[in-house]
Amino acid sequence: MIPDADTQMALITRGCAELIEEAGLRKKLARGTPLRVKVGFDPTAPDLHLGHTVVIRKMRHFQELGHRVIFLIGDFTGRIGDPSGRSDTRPPLSEEQVTANAETYKKQIFKILDPEKTEVAFNSKWLGALDAAGFIRLASHYTVARMLERDDFDKRYRNNQPISIHEFLYPLAQGYDSVMLKSDVELGGTDQKFNLLVGRHLQGQYGEESQCVLTMPLLEGLDGERKMSKSLGNYIGIDESAAQIFGKTMSLSDKLMWRYFELLSAKSLAEIAGLRRDVERGTRHPKTVKEELALELTALYHGAAKAEEARAGFNAVFVEGGTPDEAPEYRCPEGEDSAPAAFLAASGLAPSRSEARRLIAQKALHVNGVLHTDGATPLGKGFYIIKLGKKRFLRLTVA
Amino acid sequence: MIPDADTQMALITRGCAELIEEAGLRKKLARGTPLRVKVGFDPTAPDLHLGHTVVIRKMRHFQELGHRVIFLIGDFTGRIGDPSGRSDTRPPLSEEQVTANAETYKKQIFKILDPEKTEVAFNSKWLGALDAAGFIRLASHYTVARMLERDDFDKRYRNNQPISIHEFLYPLAQGYDSVMLKSDVELGGTDQKFNLLVGRHLQGQYGEESQCVLTMPLLEGLDGERKMSKSLGNYIGIDESAAQIFGKTMSLSDKLMWRYFELLSAKSLAEIAGLRRDVERGTRHPKTVKEELALELTALYHGAAKAEEARAGFNAVFVEGGTPDEAPEYRCPEGEDSAPAAFLAASGLAPSRSEARRLIAQKALHVNGVLHTDGATPLGKGFYIIKLGKKRFLRLTVA
Repeated sequence: MIPDADTQMALITRGCAELIEEAGLRKKLARGTPLRVKVGFDPTAPDLHLGHTVVIRKMRHFQELGHRVIFLIGDFTGRIGDPSGRSDTRPPLSEEQVTANAETYKKQIFKILDPEKTEVAFNSKWLGALDAAGFIRLASHYTVARMLERDDFDKRYRNNQPISIHEFLYPLAQGYDSVMLKSDVELGGTDQKFNLLVGRHLQGQYGEESQCVLTMPLLEGLDGERKMSKSLGNYIGIDESAAQIFGKTMSLSDKLMWRYFELLSAKSLAEIAGLRRDVERGTRHPKTVKEELALELTALYHGAAKAEEARAGFNAVFVEGGTPDEAPEYRCPEGEDSAPAAFLAASGLAPSRSEARRLIAQKALHVNGVLHTDGATPLGKGFYIIKLGKKRFLRLTVA
Repeated sequence: MIPDADTQMALITRGCAELIEEAGLRKKLARGTPLRVKVGFDPTAPDLHLGHTVVIRKMRHFQELGHRVIFLIGDFTGRIGDPSGRSDTRPPLSEEQVTANAETYKKQIFKILDPEKTEVAFNSKWLGALDAAGFIRLASHYTVARMLERDDFDKRYRNNQPISIHEFLYPLAQGYDSVMLKSDVELGGTDQKFNLLVGRHLQGQYGEESQCVLTMPLLEGLDGERKMSKSLGNYIGIDESAAQIFGKTMSLSDKLMWRYFELLSAKSLAEIAGLRRDVERGTRHPKTVKEELALELTALYHGAAKAEEARAGFNAVFVEGGTPDEAPEYRCPEGEDSAPAAFLAASGLAPSRSEARRLIAQKALHVNGVLHTDGATPLGKGFYIIKLGKKRFLRLTVA
């Protein structure tokens, strides 16, 4: 049984940044047939983190309401690489790599999505078949002035930073995906709004019904400042161990915790507001509330039992010796050695590198609640709670 | 034997508007091997007029110097038509139409060019084979800002007139032709300068030697104001009869005559300067000089004998009765009937339409020196010397 439109709208718009536009979506819902909900993903970065799950969880909401989601892998552009040939960092992907990445994606997304109601699609199927004439026709449906209205293009144009013409073609290609997929709704982060609207426009130009556009907020990373991203190191990956997910969540600031509740938890907004009141009144300690969040997020990807284990492990490490909030902060700047032996000495947590190495060999080091025995390999960019011996703590940032 | 570089440069640059750049061209010439000289033509308008011949005669100069010219028919874009589908006036050309138009072109251009040193090419051959990925790569080699520097784009962008993105793709496609053809030089009218430079740039991007660009002035039409063009009616077609070419040339103003000498005649610049001096000093009448030009241009397309016949015919009509320069002018505005019976009456040359019709039936009407017996069909836009009976003349403009 499909829920009524108001019930559907409430779940669909929960946590969303913008819906364009409500009347259109209500009309589509009123037809009573499952909607086609498109979401595009980059084929080169198949390691999903919680930042991605904001949108994927919204896809799940649509599935729960009986709709069909399309997990679109944008392999067409990935297979072109950097067309100007100037960058070595974007080599074209082979067909095998695309297939392998798709499998990695599936392994991860089906922790959240229902495979029965998910269509995995590759846009090289139709974009690869498009000839130059077809591409010119596509490009005839959009104007230069409108394209230059996109925030980043506008800024670069004003600042005399070059924009290659092919960069204008990517949003068109992405919009053409909507035409070919006949999507009813497209989801994406707020930074994708312009591109999603191109799809909406192009569908109209090709004589199809236009998709609605639903944008979700971008999740801040563990630093609470920048968008969560693997390259910034401020992420929680959904393929990480239960102990990592639990420990990283526990490293969040109290303020950021509420943001994660709102965008990632299954709790109702009313429940979250209740928790917040309790903390403000002092009837609950923020750490126990954070533990609840860490438990929920860990359970999502590892099940309740593993999540409980992770909590026990974390507490065994931390609860006796002190609370990380009281720990000193240390920042390891870019270019400086971030190997444990190095930052333990540099921060003063250990008196010297050799002493640090000795302690690590004695299994005295925990990183985010997990025993760490490698003193020589640098840690990647990110935020870590470090424990050395029973009483020495450090809140570490590797920049 | 290939002439030395200075001799070549003198003929190549005669009458040209701009050469980009001389050192590069000298370097290419110094190699002593025939250059590949590219010129693009529109596949939809195979009726050539003297305006086109400014460039075609320059192609001929290259041939005379031993080089190879490529007559490139831009059928790729012609076969797309108006990609936005909004205009009925640009239906896509079929393969048959393109072939037929090419034949029409050949029939005309080989009146000027040496078929042995001419390669006729169609850009659909490589552009039709280009896929979307190839097109994106092509578009990655040019920036939006540079494209917006093109005069017409710049104006439209400033005036908030829409520019479709596909319009940015056409100059790239045209430039890609130069890459594929490995052209050493590209010729065109001054209005093509930007597009020719795109080709020059793209060749460099694709790791080829860049073409030199040679632009020729645009020939004014018979009105002496606007560019010669079939749709404006101010043209002399190279497929017109000897009498038409002769008569239309005789209808030129004295001032315009010098421009035509410079851009169309085989006379040296010194000879032309001499003629001009003679006219200014009054030692020659401008009409006899104009006759010389008319004779030369007519002979180019019909041979010397037919040209002489045309002159005799023209003089038989005009010399006895008066000189067209002294004839009254009459302008038939747009929307008004331009059939001979109508304008003869409206201009007062005949007392009434019925009287005009009677005179036409009696073979009293000559248009540009040619007997005209159809009083009912409107004349097309253009400039005509009208003679009615033995002494009545009219310089007619149909707008």
